[in-house]
Amino acid sequence: MRKEKDKIKIIPLGGIDEIGKNMTVIEYKDEIVVIDCGLKFPDDEMFGIDVVIPDITYLIKNKDKIKGFFITHGHEDHIGALPYILKQINVPVHATKLTLGLIKIKLKEHNLLDVVELVTVKPTDVIKFQRLSVEFIKVNHSIADATAIAIHTPLGAIVHTGDFKVDFTPVDGEVIDLQRFSELGRKGVLALMADSTNVERKGYTLSESTVGESFRKLFQGVEGRIIVATFASNIHRLQQIMEAGIAHGRKIAVSGRSMENIIPVASELGYLHVDESSMITVDQINKYPENQVLIITTGSQGEPMAALSRMAAGLHRKVQIKTGDTVVFSSSPIPGNEKSVFNTINQLYKLGANVIYESLAEVHVSGHACQEEIKLIHTLVRPKNFIPVHGESRHLREHADLAFNLGQDRNSIVIPENGDVIEVARDGIRKNGTVASGHVFIDGLGVGDVGKIVLRDRKLLSEDGIITVVVTMEKESGMVVSGPDIISRGFVYVKEAEVLMENARLVVREVLDECEEKRISDWNVLKTMIKDSLKSYLYSKTMRKPMILPIIMEV
Amino acid sequence: MRKEKDKIKIIPLGGIDEIGKNMTVIEYKDEIVVIDCGLKFPDDEMFGIDVVIPDITYLIKNKDKIKGFFITHGHEDHIGALPYILKQINVPVHATKLTLGLIKIKLKEHNLLDVVELVTVKPTDVIKFQRLSVEFIKVNHSIADATAIAIHTPLGAIVHTGDFKVDFTPVDGEVIDLQRFSELGRKGVLALMADSTNVERKGYTLSESTVGESFRKLFQGVEGRIIVATFASNIHRLQQIMEAGIAHGRKIAVSGRSMENIIPVASELGYLHVDESSMITVDQINKYPENQVLIITTGSQGEPMAALSRMAAGLHRKVQIKTGDTVVFSSSPIPGNEKSVFNTINQLYKLGANVIYESLAEVHVSGHACQEEIKLIHTLVRPKNFIPVHGESRHLREHADLAFNLGQDRNSIVIPENGDVIEVARDGIRKNGTVASGHVFIDGLGVGDVGKIVLRDRKLLSEDGIITVVVTMEKESGMVVSGPDIISRGFVYVKEAEVLMENARLVVREVLDECEEKRISDWNVLKTMIKDSLKSYLYSKTMRKPMILPIIMEV
Repeated sequence: MRKEKDKIKIIPLGGIDEIGKNMTVIEYKDEIVVIDCGLKFPDDEMFGIDVVIPDITYLIKNKDKIKGFFITHGHEDHIGALPYILKQINVPVHATKLTLGLIKIKLKEHNLLDVVELVTVKPTDVIKFQRLSVEFIKVNHSIADATAIAIHTPLGAIVHTGDFKVDFTPVDGEVIDLQRFSELGRKGVLALMADSTNVERKGYTLSESTVGESFRKLFQGVEGRIIVATFASNIHRLQQIMEAGIAHGRKIAVSGRSMENIIPVASELGYLHVDESSMITVDQINKYPENQVLIITTGSQGEPMAALSRMAAGLHRKVQIKTGDTVVFSSSPIPGNEKSVFNTINQLYKLGANVIYESLAEVHVSGHACQEEIKLIHTLVRPKNFIPVHGESRHLREHADLAFNLGQDRNSIVIPENGDVIEVARDGIRKNGTVASGHVFIDGLGVGDVGKIVLRDRKLLSEDGIITVVVTMEKESGMVVSGPDIISRGFVYVKEAEVLMENARLVVREVLDECEEKRISDWNVLKTMIKDSLKSYLYSKTMRKPMILPIIMEV
Repeated sequence: MRKEKDKIKIIPLGGIDEIGKNMTVIEYKDEIVVIDCGLKFPDDEMFGIDVVIPDITYLIKNKDKIKGFFITHGHEDHIGALPYILKQINVPVHATKLTLGLIKIKLKEHNLLDVVELVTVKPTDVIKFQRLSVEFIKVNHSIADATAIAIHTPLGAIVHTGDFKVDFTPVDGEVIDLQRFSELGRKGVLALMADSTNVERKGYTLSESTVGESFRKLFQGVEGRIIVATFASNIHRLQQIMEAGIAHGRKIAVSGRSMENIIPVASELGYLHVDESSMITVDQINKYPENQVLIITTGSQGEPMAALSRMAAGLHRKVQIKTGDTVVFSSSPIPGNEKSVFNTINQLYKLGANVIYESLAEVHVSGHACQEEIKLIHTLVRPKNFIPVHGESRHLREHADLAFNLGQDRNSIVIPENGDVIEVARDGIRKNGTVASGHVFIDGLGVGDVGKIVLRDRKLLSEDGIITVVVTMEKESGMVVSGPDIISRGFVYVKEAEVLMENARLVVREVLDECEEKRISDWNVLKTMIKDSLKSYLYSKTMRKPMILPIIMEV
């Protein structure tokens, strides 16, 4: 009997052809480690959906092999699915201190805190299992305590960069561990998976510390209140905004739930240095002169319920925007959020605020590596095989081309799709089959109970509304006892369309007469006839196609 | 009796705090001229709406004063509302030849071609009325034959730039008439209204002719088919793409309805020079070697039904994308369209195409003036008063600041809102009241019959669907004869939620029992009770809030 070839399976269950719900399975014989466990926010077409998580059918099937989750950093698209997935697969979660701090906030909300084993690691730590061992490596990113992960296998190391940038002057002084990448490269890396987010951008991403400089200049001479919106999880950004505020004699108030959640955690764990004597609550802002107030807030993406959006809409209970206020967006709109961000900016302008955003000042830098940084990592790691990850198809293709231009053999590059089983052996890399993958929708308390049919109905309902037709029929005789009653929602404003609705009733009435005459007693036939006549009548009059729901009540 | 002060009213009915549905009323005594008559495409929140046009209540009230529509150029946001509005106010439409050509396509679709008086003008033409006269002035823009408009009044000239850029080397050699702007400025301009779209961008907009150069370089050495997506109305872009194609020995096919509509019109009117011997139909593309095929297509904004989107989705009947195809986006995503544009790009990549878009090559330039061009116009026109137009609030504010920095007195600048009545007199400018303004929704054949309530219902339906509860009651006794039947759409996938739906039925059943017992015979009370119990039951079980529609049938 021929011995099966020794190989490692790499299976991305999320994060491919999307920015979101990152999850990668690394499998060797009877051991599986899972990198990241993220969520994704819904697209416009995912009506009513709260969040999207990866399909973990494969993990459930292979439950016994799983050694744990290994989390690169604390962003939602890397940790957000944990509460949902740990309910199905309770395995240990390994991450650095701050990342675990953020995970704990989530687990607490889901009453999972005492149920799940959490393992704190630090960069350079190696967690050993039977055949696999998992090493955490320091990287820079737009959140503190971010790591890459190297998985050491009998066939060689698999390196996953996580989300990274190369910051030579990070705010906490902790530079990405280029030496370790270099050392791994020297020893030989079997495969590299690397962040593709900014592969379209030439040059280098600016250092986070340049933003601090911008803030210090920007705050100079501002007479009114300053309100800065940024991501709650960007601890170093918060640090720099606070320090610039304090340097200009301002007290600092914080608004927005995620920010109020994260600041104490980051502070307690030593990642954020909060000068308590400078902190005030939003209730206290009116006690200070306007040039002594700095408010740090959520809502930099124009999220409808976030604090800044409420301020802009005049709905914030504590902060009323007024002439003289300066509002700074220390952020860049995530693709898809442009309209809501600009909408918030417009509202703020209309309330008299001065608004400063990325296209007007240098108040934001990206957390992802641009081309030159990506080239640096490839050059240090010199992987035998390369798999671009964390990007849409266009990013992955660009990243593959970048690697090829650096000398990577085309045959050693695999552009993955979610669910692909990528086999890496000593002699090469190839795709071999797929496993279940895709979107699992979270809607309220439901996990996965909203599928294609429900979404299709929501889409139809959103376009032209619904018309319900109810008729009561006598079972025996097949005669109409009452109705037809027609009720519409989201179709036309009924008071303006009384004639239309009355005529629609007559159309149904005619169908019913016809059925009585022909003695049709199959209600499904009757329903179809009602649907068809009403549909064509309404389309001819309005060019709209509401959903039509005929209901027959038998007495 | 004191004589009323002599003044001109300027009333923007659209185009303010929005990019779209441009329309400005200029009124002096018993004369009104209306500049532009555009539509806007719906926002995400305008469920099911096809297009949005301005509220013209004020125009209808003052019908007899209106001398006509004066159209600056042929883009949808300047001409798109004409077919709807001319049905209500039939007044002459004045525009240059190409603009009228595009308007005629629309009027024909609406069977209005023989009903409306169309007046062809050319730049430098002046149309005289009793007290007002309207002058057309050549400008550059991303469509040929674009104009500014000067309205000469007894109090001085009002200059409206329309959409403009300053192109010293336009494709047709027709440079913006800077001399005329200068001359008007020298004589004295009472008020300037100017395009604010690109006021956030520093420097100058590149000349349209630079794009031709990019195409010639880009097409060099491409082996496969080339597919270029751009706006159908950008005639000069089409011209340059065609010429670059022909220069590289390619035949040209055109795909997409608006492109097929516009090309013959532009060609017939002499704005586009089509080399008939190079033109083929999309049916013929497979008869030519791949390196001799160029397809020009619509869909550069990722519009779901456009030709390129269908190609990307594998749904185009004639063009199947394959490895070796090069697809060029000669466009920039309009804010809000980023996701659909990138989605199309990703799909094309997945089909094996090489995709070139703005962030990778210089294949597009804007049609709107950047800061230095805007400063040039202000400096030439030196208006007494200034009104920034054609932009969101943030653009208007920036534009006001730009004018102020050029020396314009703050008191002479008015940042308008739609519906504001701006009075300009010899001694100053001020807002004095408002008229009706806002969105009129077009949905199918309905103009304005969809309002806030219908939209709110569509939004609710889109989020959590609908639950219909039907009960047949005996009128006399108030007893249940049949039901309750519960039917849901867009709420849960019923097969997965049988227990939930059965329990929901029991909840309603209990309410009915209670009502029978208490002999409640007011159906509205009963309906409210059903709604409330079901709502709280479903929320407790699912955290969703479907619309609940109780229907009582009486027998």
